[in-house]
Amino acid sequence: MKAIVVKPPRPGAEITEVQRTPGKGPVLVRIVENGICGTDREIVNGTFSGARAPPGEDYLILGHEAIGVVEKIEGKVEDLEVGDLVMPVNRRGCGHCLNCLVGRPDFCETGNFVEAGMIGMHGFMVEHFYDDPKYLVKVPKAIADIAILAQPLSDLEKSVEEILAVQRRVPVWTCDDGTYNCRTAVVIGSGAIGTLITLLLKTYGFRVIVANRRDPTPREKEIFFGVGAKWYNSANGYEELAKETGGVDLIFDTTGRVDVVKSVFPALRTNGVLGLFGFSEAERAEFTSADLKQLIYKNAAVVGLINGQKPHFQQALVHLAAWKAMWPDVASKLITKVVKIDDRDAVLDVLKHRSPGEIKIKISWQ
Amino acid sequence: MKAIVVKPPRPGAEITEVQRTPGKGPVLVRIVENGICGTDREIVNGTFSGARAPPGEDYLILGHEAIGVVEKIEGKVEDLEVGDLVMPVNRRGCGHCLNCLVGRPDFCETGNFVEAGMIGMHGFMVEHFYDDPKYLVKVPKAIADIAILAQPLSDLEKSVEEILAVQRRVPVWTCDDGTYNCRTAVVIGSGAIGTLITLLLKTYGFRVIVANRRDPTPREKEIFFGVGAKWYNSANGYEELAKETGGVDLIFDTTGRVDVVKSVFPALRTNGVLGLFGFSEAERAEFTSADLKQLIYKNAAVVGLINGQKPHFQQALVHLAAWKAMWPDVASKLITKVVKIDDRDAVLDVLKHRSPGEIKIKISWQ
Amino acid sequence: MKAIVVKPPRPGAEITEVQRTPGKGPVLVRIVENGICGTDREIVNGTFSGARAPPGEDYLILGHEAIGVVEKIEGKVEDLEVGDLVMPVNRRGCGHCLNCLVGRPDFCETGNFVEAGMIGMHGFMVEHFYDDPKYLVKVPKAIADIAILAQPLSDLEKSVEEILAVQRRVPVWTCDDGTYNCRTAVVIGSGAIGTLITLLLKTYGFRVIVANRRDPTPREKEIFFGVGAKWYNSANGYEELAKETGGVDLIFDTTGRVDVVKSVFPALRTNGVLGLFGFSEAERAEFTSADLKQLIYKNAAVVGLINGQKPHFQQALVHLAAWKAMWPDVASKLITKVVKIDDRDAVLDVLKHRSPGEIKIKISWQ
Amino acid sequence: MKAIVVKPPRPGAEITEVQRTPGKGPVLVRIVENGICGTDREIVNGTFSGARAPPGEDYLILGHEAIGVVEKIEGKVEDLEVGDLVMPVNRRGCGHCLNCLVGRPDFCETGNFVEAGMIGMHGFMVEHFYDDPKYLVKVPKAIADIAILAQPLSDLEKSVEEILAVQRRVPVWTCDDGTYNCRTAVVIGSGAIGTLITLLLKTYGFRVIVANRRDPTPREKEIFFGVGAKWYNSANGYEELAKETGGVDLIFDTTGRVDVVKSVFPALRTNGVLGLFGFSEAERAEFTSADLKQLIYKNAAVVGLINGQKPHFQQALVHLAAWKAMWPDVASKLITKVVKIDDRDAVLDVLKHRSPGEIKIKISWQ
Repeated sequence: MKAIVVKPPRPGAEITEVQRTPGKGPVLVRIVENGICGTDREIVNGTFSGARAPPGEDYLILGHEAIGVVEKIEGKVEDLEVGDLVMPVNRRGCGHCLNCLVGRPDFCETGNFVEAGMIGMHGFMVEHFYDDPKYLVKVPKAIADIAILAQPLSDLEKSVEEILAVQRRVPVWTCDDGTYNCRTAVVIGSGAIGTLITLLLKTYGFRVIVANRRDPTPREKEIFFGVGAKWYNSANGYEELAKETGGVDLIFDTTGRVDVVKSVFPALRTNGVLGLFGFSEAERAEFTSADLKQLIYKNAAVVGLINGQKPHFQQALVHLAAWKAMWPDVASKLITKVVKIDDRDAVLDVLKHRSPGEIKIKISWQ
Repeated sequence: MKAIVVKPPRPGAEITEVQRTPGKGPVLVRIVENGICGTDREIVNGTFSGARAPPGEDYLILGHEAIGVVEKIEGKVEDLEVGDLVMPVNRRGCGHCLNCLVGRPDFCETGNFVEAGMIGMHGFMVEHFYDDPKYLVKVPKAIADIAILAQPLSDLEKSVEEILAVQRRVPVWTCDDGTYNCRTAVVIGSGAIGTLITLLLKTYGFRVIVANRRDPTPREKEIFFGVGAKWYNSANGYEELAKETGGVDLIFDTTGRVDVVKSVFPALRTNGVLGLFGFSEAERAEFTSADLKQLIYKNAAVVGLINGQKPHFQQALVHLAAWKAMWPDVASKLITKVVKIDDRDAVLDVLKHRSPGEIKIKISWQ
Repeated sequence: MKAIVVKPPRPGAEITEVQRTPGKGPVLVRIVENGICGTDREIVNGTFSGARAPPGEDYLILGHEAIGVVEKIEGKVEDLEVGDLVMPVNRRGCGHCLNCLVGRPDFCETGNFVEAGMIGMHGFMVEHFYDDPKYLVKVPKAIADIAILAQPLSDLEKSVEEILAVQRRVPVWTCDDGTYNCRTAVVIGSGAIGTLITLLLKTYGFRVIVANRRDPTPREKEIFFGVGAKWYNSANGYEELAKETGGVDLIFDTTGRVDVVKSVFPALRTNGVLGLFGFSEAERAEFTSADLKQLIYKNAAVVGLINGQKPHFQQALVHLAAWKAMWPDVASKLITKVVKIDDRDAVLDVLKHRSPGEIKIKISWQ
Repeated sequence: MKAIVVKPPRPGAEITEVQRTPGKGPVLVRIVENGICGTDREIVNGTFSGARAPPGEDYLILGHEAIGVVEKIEGKVEDLEVGDLVMPVNRRGCGHCLNCLVGRPDFCETGNFVEAGMIGMHGFMVEHFYDDPKYLVKVPKAIADIAILAQPLSDLEKSVEEILAVQRRVPVWTCDDGTYNCRTAVVIGSGAIGTLITLLLKTYGFRVIVANRRDPTPREKEIFFGVGAKWYNSANGYEELAKETGGVDLIFDTTGRVDVVKSVFPALRTNGVLGLFGFSEAERAEFTSADLKQLIYKNAAVVGLINGQKPHFQQALVHLAAWKAMWPDVASKLITKVVKIDDRDAVLDVLKHRSPGEIKIKISWQ
């Protein structure tokens, strides 16, 4: 059976044959397509330090974004039939801590969760895999073209859910019409994550400003202005933004850069929240005690955001469907490239290199 | 200016000319279409006891479901432009109680709210009206065909939000995958409200069973089975349902009949919730202290549900968009008739009589 | 080892010797005192239908209210030492449903929980028992005199917690000073439960009116007026109350009588909540669909309330301590009688008959 | 009328006569005692930059911690009588933003709130003042000796409430017995605030470790060990703490020092939360992008905490009462000094200098 295989921590990936159908459970899934994200490339390029093969195995099947077709079901499984389109949830719980027991390994406290295609569990870049229906999300066929985005979007659904949970600390954080329409969010970064979170925050009713250190490309204009978001060129920092807006209520960082966070932080308004989503390593910034004081005087909160679970996949699919209907021109721009699994060179190339303007690249197995 | 006018408490409605453009605020809206619901008919038939004209006026313009086009804006209004499609929120607050001040007159404590086309405020069955942007919800043009449903759906969005708020009293009411997929909801009644709440509860991930005292019509089969719901013929009560399901977690009543509620109540499982949405008057049922005891032993909750506000209109539009993309065949069946405002007899007829199989009837002004 | 033993469903109780120290776990507890409540008497009188001995045993040690001293600890147990005063939690989870796994068997969904001294688990009217520290609540020695009340109070702590959780469905249910000081609660019944919930609701800041079908006794006056509560004589129903108060926000019923609930229900204000705590069986009342309509128009909620768990025991102890300091005269009236375990006749008598004016009777083992 | 008066931004304070009784409202309060805190001293020493007199006045009456006696009431005021002991709430809302309208100026969004004795409103170090009952909290006479602590404690009640609100983002943050007993909190700093928050977190059920860069004094041992807290000498940083505890779940900083926060942050466990309460200015610390990454991987949250409102004053009084009963030896150590208002030199001295080991110093007016 064909699979895309890596051997962490060594860099490199190959499309090869594996002997055993990975996974376990009563449902046999035939892969239809995979999505590729930055973490896949870090694994292939040997820079994702956490990557490891399943216990006792010397290779790892890559891939945590996938859509497949249910090919066989052993026994009776409620709510699932042969022929259904499904998407597997990628992080699986430790089986012990309370959050994992209630189906929320995004808050696993033991750290013993596994992640498909990344940490201790085979991924889904493989012809077939077995799975438990508990981890399979039904995909509406009418939105199959963009449904692969539900995996990265699930992380953001969880992020917005968590941000709103944190903000319930404020007695009233909604506007005088009960909505979030008067609240301004700034999204730092206009890549794939910046794009999806912008659409999502607009869907929740926020005013959204996308910030990057340059002017938008024509495609970015079509997408961001098409959903009613604005653009802010942050080449000269965020002072101008703070002045124009009178302060922002929500900062969503997709860069992970501490220097960027430091420069944008003064733009936060009273009762505001800063969500951290992106990863970086090397940058440095000096903070003073006066910065902490500002956090206090502003009633501010900062929260680290990671991983969506099954409820977030399901909500991501609902939102993708809504976007396809509401913003058809924007939705059609979200999949920026499809390569066929048989086109070996193209597949290995997209696994190594990010394309300019890339939002989501799919590998098609059909 | 043409309008549909009633003079409560007298029965009857007429399509006539009114002198003054109703409403106030910087936005002039030209009506595009209205929806009709049971309350409109109760007002026209003189059976809705709360109906009354605005203070100092002797007539009431009917209509609380409407879509219009922004024709003029006085001054600067953020987030709204001439040409935008908008839907007005129908209940407006008392201006004094805390819930109204925070934009949530669905929980008005003084009772001094007004409702467009019903209670003390002109409605939207009129060529033009003025409004405040605070009460106008932007409608995505791509879903204009079904967007009128956002008004009735807003009441249900609020209802599900409130039900889930009530259920947060249970430490864990989600399933072991974090979703509601293992929770069974039964919807009592398969009319317009029964239809919309079924689609909505499916969207939230519940298993849904629609109950009525007969078998489904072909159209009902297409709609309910099309979204993955089941049907229960309750002609012989709800004992069978309780047995088959092992108990239901959520009962959503759209009938308002106390005898029906009494018969379905024993089917409720531990930690379950009963939402009351429909209105009725005359039926009677005897309860015993042992019934209260069951409520206690089951940790059950009962909650009265009414009126959605602006955040619920916005979420209704997102869900309608999702349904249009996910379930195109079902979505296309939700508008069961359109009559033109110039077809006076047809308009007055649909204002008086419910059509068999009716889900939503629209009056088109174009 | 001496114990008070019952053999349900047979009526009767005896003070006798048992062979085996009941319970399991690393902590050996020597009993100091027990409290007696209505359920104990129902078991002794053979009217509590759910009573049953532990699996495989033919008797049941009675008692679910207890304070003991830690006599021995096997191995290392954090936060507990020999000599500590402890109170055992009486309901223990099924070990399977999610609520039991997170320590909240008050919301057990399987129904397979056990209750000490009642349902399938030996109680604490016994010289010694073993237990797991997970189920032992440390009792501050300085309030040992009234600490036994923490068991019944725990049920009410959980009840208020659940009521406030339900009320979070209302965007703003607090007053314009952020407290509950403007909210009126009526407590139906002035027995032990009525007394404790009155003190608790006062502690939360509510205005509290205690209702009974007669004037208060001198002792009731001292207690209820001593904590700032009022009294309502409900001999002629609740219309007068509704008029005087303009409606109440919270009704807490301790009677379980459906006829009483029906008569008090119209006094509920918009956004109000009715908590059901008491048990009864036989009474009847007729409700109409118009009653359901009132529930809807009032945005009302009804919730069944039962069983407190360890967090509620701990909070109950904090509140008892506060009452002892704030209201020393009232606190000193809450224990209405103490009988010694060696006074066999007195013990058996209080196990069968409620004393007039009784709030809490203790059996002392020292 | 005698008052303690300052003229910010000038340093210095004097005990002098003022002409007009400050405040407004139907309740005349005669002062009984004031508490002194660090902010008072900053104002007196001219280092609190925000201090300012009420609009149109050239002096500011100092004092935001006060207990008085109701001397006269104009008209009818519910829940308050002449002779009652009361404590005024010190921050008053802007009257415009939604949080202030619902009685929560601790989350004021306009910044136009005033604070008694600090920012634009006369304080309570004055013989008499008028006030609105909305801002007066009834003090149980039985705990009058320590009740002054309710003002600083109210800030901490609000802080813990907000921290727990933030932690509701985690599906399960309670232990497997439903309590916080398995959660470890570390309090940075052992001054007045460190002392009160330690008692409060113990009351909530947390394991608490107090950290300071030295060993505890005998008095600190009595207090902290007396309530079951532990001590950590942080002279060599927090690595040892992280190792011993396996990570802490809650860090409560009372120092405001960014360098301290940086050094303790690595001790935070997954799903943990860092609350910032103290103020400092000058210290510096360098953070890297890898630190942000840790925040994300740990699902951590950081939250700025400030100001309690009326509900928190009321809960503070309940907790003080509980502590007085549960921990009488500890409670008796919380008031470290009382000076009489007639002892002018002593008063001016305590207004300028912190005493060693000081927890709370009171000025008595009787």
